[in-house]
Amino acid sequence: MLRLYSSEKYRSVKHFIDWLATFGETEDGGVTRLLYTKEWKNAQNALKQEMSGIGMETYFDTVGNLFGRIEGIKDKQHVILTGSHIDTVVDGGKYDGTYGVIASLLATKMLLDQYGRPQKTIEVVSLCEEEGSRFPLTYWGSKNITGEYSLENIRYLRDLNDISFQHAMGEAGFPIASYQNKKRNDIKRFIEVHIEQGSILEKNKADIGLVTHIVGQCRFTVQLIGESNHAGTTPMAERKDPMVCAANCIVTLTKKAEASYYQGLRVTVGSINAEPNVSNVIAKSVSFTLDVRHHEKDILQEYCEDMIQMIKEKAMKSGIQISIKKWADSEPVALDTSLHSLMRKIVKNKGLRDMEMVSGAGHDSQILGIHYPTTLFFVPSHKGISHSPLEFTSLQDLENGVSVLKEVLYKLAYEGVEL
Amino acid sequence: MLRLYSSEKYRSVKHFIDWLATFGETEDGGVTRLLYTKEWKNAQNALKQEMSGIGMETYFDTVGNLFGRIEGIKDKQHVILTGSHIDTVVDGGKYDGTYGVIASLLATKMLLDQYGRPQKTIEVVSLCEEEGSRFPLTYWGSKNITGEYSLENIRYLRDLNDISFQHAMGEAGFPIASYQNKKRNDIKRFIEVHIEQGSILEKNKADIGLVTHIVGQCRFTVQLIGESNHAGTTPMAERKDPMVCAANCIVTLTKKAEASYYQGLRVTVGSINAEPNVSNVIAKSVSFTLDVRHHEKDILQEYCEDMIQMIKEKAMKSGIQISIKKWADSEPVALDTSLHSLMRKIVKNKGLRDMEMVSGAGHDSQILGIHYPTTLFFVPSHKGISHSPLEFTSLQDLENGVSVLKEVLYKLAYEGVEL
Repeated sequence: MLRLYSSEKYRSVKHFIDWLATFGETEDGGVTRLLYTKEWKNAQNALKQEMSGIGMETYFDTVGNLFGRIEGIKDKQHVILTGSHIDTVVDGGKYDGTYGVIASLLATKMLLDQYGRPQKTIEVVSLCEEEGSRFPLTYWGSKNITGEYSLENIRYLRDLNDISFQHAMGEAGFPIASYQNKKRNDIKRFIEVHIEQGSILEKNKADIGLVTHIVGQCRFTVQLIGESNHAGTTPMAERKDPMVCAANCIVTLTKKAEASYYQGLRVTVGSINAEPNVSNVIAKSVSFTLDVRHHEKDILQEYCEDMIQMIKEKAMKSGIQISIKKWADSEPVALDTSLHSLMRKIVKNKGLRDMEMVSGAGHDSQILGIHYPTTLFFVPSHKGISHSPLEFTSLQDLENGVSVLKEVLYKLAYEGVEL
Repeated sequence: MLRLYSSEKYRSVKHFIDWLATFGETEDGGVTRLLYTKEWKNAQNALKQEMSGIGMETYFDTVGNLFGRIEGIKDKQHVILTGSHIDTVVDGGKYDGTYGVIASLLATKMLLDQYGRPQKTIEVVSLCEEEGSRFPLTYWGSKNITGEYSLENIRYLRDLNDISFQHAMGEAGFPIASYQNKKRNDIKRFIEVHIEQGSILEKNKADIGLVTHIVGQCRFTVQLIGESNHAGTTPMAERKDPMVCAANCIVTLTKKAEASYYQGLRVTVGSINAEPNVSNVIAKSVSFTLDVRHHEKDILQEYCEDMIQMIKEKAMKSGIQISIKKWADSEPVALDTSLHSLMRKIVKNKGLRDMEMVSGAGHDSQILGIHYPTTLFFVPSHKGISHSPLEFTSLQDLENGVSVLKEVLYKLAYEGVEL
């Protein structure tokens, strides 16, 4: 395992990312750093030490969001918050989330080295959880900052090893007895840099993606229940085969999503499970997930309603029972337009090529963006690969992101630009 | 657990079946009796004891097929063989296989009680394995009688607990050191009675199904490999989604199978598996099984060839790589026509309603039927349910089967009817 001395990891953002990737490193070069695990705890504590080393005042909130604070000379009550999340998916990449935390740390360090203390307070945050990879819950970090979550939301959650959320949290050093859910009202701006996780920037030869909207998402689990029967003795006409019905639904879902009317819509059936899932038995039931995203609320809603209707009709025709469960429903979020204009100027001034984008992925910015003026910007992901050990962003692109972040923090916290 | 005294279980075929179902009884009233397990071994030994009780000479062959032999007075070299298999699927029913073994035992006992020793030798067989439920291999019992299998076929096989076939076999009392694979040449006829496992007899209000053919079967695993990507950041037009391609294939496979040209064809996609199988990730790969059955070799072959071509074309169009593996390929088997005529007369004489059928399920008769003149007949399965704890055949139907079996054994072994 690679362990760099502090001096070494500050040689470049790439070195810093490689260093953090050693916490939860997997055999094939990926990272698995799930909420409240040993790897997660070690990574947060190592970051805390780095923050202290830079001269930040550090603290954890009661759920494990890590903050490094540089108090402003003039306006210390109001915080310019920047950062991203520390947790990963299982065998994910080095950059997702992590890059935003490290870029924030480095940009702040550079500002301190170059200009000393800011006028307004800067806080760098390493959010405890965004992915929902260990427990079936997302945005545990950001939604505790906005006060949207409480212990109620995690009361019955367990991971795949049957460990309860509460127990894992306590073991990691955040006992529920100390838990507080109070919205922070001191945050004036939130700025997040993230890898794109798509290939639009690369394909368009753009350096920085300026996000205008984050898509709304609806996620469903559709269960089709038919009649399990012997594959050899049941004539085709007498079957109630949920596999065939599921296939028909998936074909129609996809065709409709590709229609020009729904431009920008993204529809994915990523998971499918049949019971008993045996080659020579007609399935009793088939479940599949449906992930639908668009940045316009009306389009999203219309598509979902039409498709639910379509699935119901197809199931009825085939004598198949259905259960459709909507288990995620987030509205599209429009990010702050004043910050967006400022960002645009900064990128142009640096001679970089910017591109306006909709984020098809969810980000902490969509949670914080509802409560605080927020901007989110992307650096390119090579080939668009993400949530994979093959995730990669070039050093130049990583540095571009840090440089833009440094500039926007300078404008907001040092120059005190009012938007 | 129910244990009946010998006298009690001879009260009816139903009692006898219930007794055997106690070996491997499951919580929900089903039976799990996998090859070479404790339950299997106890059941075979209990049957052996019953056979001895009836006055049969009993023996196991070197793979664990159990035989009960009544030597003929005149023609002891030539054997009229009757029976079925003792093993079950996981949580299967009481009747599948078992009924054929018990009916053979009872029919022979009745003949002995009524007429004494036969002219020709009768052997009742409880075949060790037909289902392929523990190890990925079917017909281990019958294909050892025909000499088609050898130790080569099982050398690398392991069950889900990583126990090797050879080890399990040895532990059950059949060490491979004693193994012999030699075709039996003394079998003159094979007669099997089995539950239908479909609902054709019930729907047609017939008592006995006389099987003319057993379908040929081809089984494939189709793997489609696309490009895993983020469900939110990858535009529809840029996806190589194997889930959508699989759905398209399944829809086309089914539509074609339902065409009148392919009457009698049965096509099932019973199993599907996606990787990584996560709701918000476009799948990297999707595998599905394809089970195709027909009693005419040409139709079976034509359909399979056309469908493989179709899958290849669809995959190519979507930029998806494929691998198609054919892992089972059995030809349709036509059963003995002379025995069939004899059976028909017997059923008519008893005032029962017979029906000619094709067996859509595989049976030991299709293995033995290639080597020895064979007949297979069915009794109704209530609602066609099989491979399930809900498997059921009424006492009347069970008794009809025993009565028909008794009569055909009488004709062959006592009257010495030459066909």
